[in-house]
Amino acid sequence: MKTKEFLGQLHAIDRDCCLLEKTAAILQWDQETNLPPEGVEERANQLALIEGLANERAADPQIGRFLEELGSKTENPSGDEALPPVERDFCRALRRRYDRAVKLPPGFAAAAARAESLSQAAWVEARRNNDFAAFVPHLKAMVDFARKRAEYWGFTGGAVYDGLLDAHEPGIAAEEIARLFGPLRERLSALLKRISAKNAAGLERGGDWAFLNQPYNTEQQARYSRDLMESLGFDLRRGRLDTSAHPFTTTLGFSDVRITTRYIEGNVLSAIFSTIHESGHAFYELDINPDLRGTCLAEGVSMGIHESQSRLWENVFGRSRAFWEYQFPRLKAVFPEQLREVTADAFYRAVNRAGPSLIRIEADELSYSLHIILRFELERRLFSGDLAVEDLPHAWRRSMKELLGIEPQTDAEGVLQDVHWSMGSFGYFPSYALGNLYGLQFLKKLRQDLPGYEEDIARGSFAAIRQWLRENIYTWGRRLDPADLLFKVTGENLSVSPFLEYIEAKYTELYGL
Amino acid sequence: MKTKEFLGQLHAIDRDCCLLEKTAAILQWDQETNLPPEGVEERANQLALIEGLANERAADPQIGRFLEELGSKTENPSGDEALPPVERDFCRALRRRYDRAVKLPPGFAAAAARAESLSQAAWVEARRNNDFAAFVPHLKAMVDFARKRAEYWGFTGGAVYDGLLDAHEPGIAAEEIARLFGPLRERLSALLKRISAKNAAGLERGGDWAFLNQPYNTEQQARYSRDLMESLGFDLRRGRLDTSAHPFTTTLGFSDVRITTRYIEGNVLSAIFSTIHESGHAFYELDINPDLRGTCLAEGVSMGIHESQSRLWENVFGRSRAFWEYQFPRLKAVFPEQLREVTADAFYRAVNRAGPSLIRIEADELSYSLHIILRFELERRLFSGDLAVEDLPHAWRRSMKELLGIEPQTDAEGVLQDVHWSMGSFGYFPSYALGNLYGLQFLKKLRQDLPGYEEDIARGSFAAIRQWLRENIYTWGRRLDPADLLFKVTGENLSVSPFLEYIEAKYTELYGL
Repeated sequence: MKTKEFLGQLHAIDRDCCLLEKTAAILQWDQETNLPPEGVEERANQLALIEGLANERAADPQIGRFLEELGSKTENPSGDEALPPVERDFCRALRRRYDRAVKLPPGFAAAAARAESLSQAAWVEARRNNDFAAFVPHLKAMVDFARKRAEYWGFTGGAVYDGLLDAHEPGIAAEEIARLFGPLRERLSALLKRISAKNAAGLERGGDWAFLNQPYNTEQQARYSRDLMESLGFDLRRGRLDTSAHPFTTTLGFSDVRITTRYIEGNVLSAIFSTIHESGHAFYELDINPDLRGTCLAEGVSMGIHESQSRLWENVFGRSRAFWEYQFPRLKAVFPEQLREVTADAFYRAVNRAGPSLIRIEADELSYSLHIILRFELERRLFSGDLAVEDLPHAWRRSMKELLGIEPQTDAEGVLQDVHWSMGSFGYFPSYALGNLYGLQFLKKLRQDLPGYEEDIARGSFAAIRQWLRENIYTWGRRLDPADLLFKVTGENLSVSPFLEYIEAKYTELYGL
Repeated sequence: MKTKEFLGQLHAIDRDCCLLEKTAAILQWDQETNLPPEGVEERANQLALIEGLANERAADPQIGRFLEELGSKTENPSGDEALPPVERDFCRALRRRYDRAVKLPPGFAAAAARAESLSQAAWVEARRNNDFAAFVPHLKAMVDFARKRAEYWGFTGGAVYDGLLDAHEPGIAAEEIARLFGPLRERLSALLKRISAKNAAGLERGGDWAFLNQPYNTEQQARYSRDLMESLGFDLRRGRLDTSAHPFTTTLGFSDVRITTRYIEGNVLSAIFSTIHESGHAFYELDINPDLRGTCLAEGVSMGIHESQSRLWENVFGRSRAFWEYQFPRLKAVFPEQLREVTADAFYRAVNRAGPSLIRIEADELSYSLHIILRFELERRLFSGDLAVEDLPHAWRRSMKELLGIEPQTDAEGVLQDVHWSMGSFGYFPSYALGNLYGLQFLKKLRQDLPGYEEDIARGSFAAIRQWLRENIYTWGRRLDPADLLFKVTGENLSVSPFLEYIEAKYTELYGL
């Protein structure tokens, strides 16, 4: 009976792998927040070494051997020989990471990393010069690397894109996403057209939002952001708020989850909603069952579930009337001059103004998913062979016209706007829109269990909400796949209805449609 | 002719080892400056893993093999077969690190690290409770580990303490230090007694220093410290200033050297002189020849030479009349209220007030070396077997009385005051006093080459001084041993005269003796 020993060995390898991954995350966090400019080059060498060591651990041949020795014990849920459920989940997560790592031939990951680094630099230049042609060879290389990676993982032919999706959202295929995005596309587009018509008819409330176009002192913004995250329940003994060029959340340890934001004098909403968004990501990571600490199970299960949390906090809670009922007086106390004439209701309307726009990361809650659907459809066609890289700008403009009713004048504000493709990240975008769907399905159940949750928010109290999210979602870490987690919590499969009903109700009321 | 290949392999191993050491330094820096309190435990695991990997590289058996293959090429300075000088220095430094690592038996380093960690925790408690007896078993263990370590390195019998000294100051032995500390002890003690007599006779200028006992806003202190470090020539593209409980300097990359300070509202001098002191350490690391970047030669050669630089900047430059001629108006502009009645000369006198005190880290420039001499003499007796751990408190009080004329009332402000012994760091203290000696010998030469250096300081211009230090000292990194570096720069061996002449002149003038 060597079961215990094999498991112990697997845990030892996994432990080192996780410690190395966290170490790499620390180097990256420091790079984004603190690194002196001249230190960049050596930092890249440090990161490459640590990431290489983490990858070595993830692909340690001993993992394959021990998993084989454990054999059916890692799968069979019955019988004396079966492992405890949490150990089976551990073995499954370990095998998934191991398989992904060992199926790539030696040198592939390093070659891809080098090409990605060149490609990202080329993208920065191409976007700056609005020169898509200069970026084409790099983007082609990125598509090739992604295709090969999926093929090594065992996804061939028409399933290549499924392989890329699976890396971000385990278990979901392009066909299912397309089935969901169909009605999403149609109804969001229709809703957006009605709002555009209202806006065009001069009925938009732009005049009420002039208070946003004022300078807001960034030091005071920082003070308000810290207060805000603490009022959401962020425990600063287990995390931090810092500033970086682009907001992000990173887990440097089980009790060291850090978020960043940025302060723009002319845009007070930017820091506020980044702070809430990243706090949502952080709460997920901070509230995983402590028994899983230090293992590969102690992280969010997928990009989509992660985004469901950041978006739940940012949009559903953070852009609600109840939220600003409590927070607006607090914000007004920090910026009494700028907000003197403004009411909580006007502020609520201002943070929910909608309309078609060119740039994804500036889009409102309603039109955001349309930006994602556009990218999903183009990615899918790229990998089915239906669309050539050279034809992307044209396809982009056509889709924008169709989905949002507007067209970019330049590729810089069109196909070149996002960093993702330049890094070879295909199959990533859909998670953002899936997050909206998961989030509203979770909320439907939360509302049943906590019917008074909106009054809580209006009182600035998030304890019960956070507890519900922790006990139902966060605590599981990677133990359950996204679809199983969703079903366990809601008793339903992935669906667009809760999200569409929420969005349609919210914007019908907001715009008096 | 495989020379090139062997050298290449040695550089590859050394490169990884250095990257891992820097990575560990990043984890530590983050721990001191940013880590949320609950993250401490996991950070210890991350650090242990990375330090373990660095130690593995330092003791990689291939290093021994390749050095052997290179054989006499690494040593013989003549002949066609000889390596270029810089590669010989590289092999020598590599061998030193390798020998130190491989001579320790397996498990020794880990056992010592565990014991040190327990001992340090016990010391914190013992100091808090003023309970030396509770610390005795730990201190005995620390002495034992240190003795064994030196013995493994090949220092036996009466030479054990030499082995510990050599780890901090390569090439120096206890006998030589004793020879230097003799006259230092005698003349500093005598000078201090004359100052004490003056102070006791009511002639001290304490009344003039009342302005120090006021609150100085810590945010303004921080702003002044940043300005100060930049005015010394610290290039913020290659480093940072942060805050931590105890000020330190750390090298996270060739162009990423960070210093910390701390801001105490009731003590404006603390942050100022920490900032200058740590800047001195940083300049040394930042100005090493860029050709050595990323190798084991790209660091300061010894603790003593490092301290010579921090003390040169902090005391010789930073506590000079010329320095405050330029800086005082700037400080006064930040704190106009507190410094309204104060002149540059009064400030100069205030930062140089002297007298016997119990606590080393609060001692003035004159009496500081006496605190070191006391520790050196006790350490030496501990390792010669002449003094038992249990008898340390008594011996401490006797020496304090003899050297400084005062006695601690408690062990907490006596033998328990420093962290060093609790971590098993024996042979470390002398570097602080050696730094004073090296520093003034360097200054003697600098003054010959740059006779106008004091006018430069009075004009706030450090460019020529920094260039001289870089070209003569900093650029070498670890290529030269301390004694060789000193001789190369000054043409002299280690000597107390320049330091004693400087101190006696300065304090005779200050106190009108």
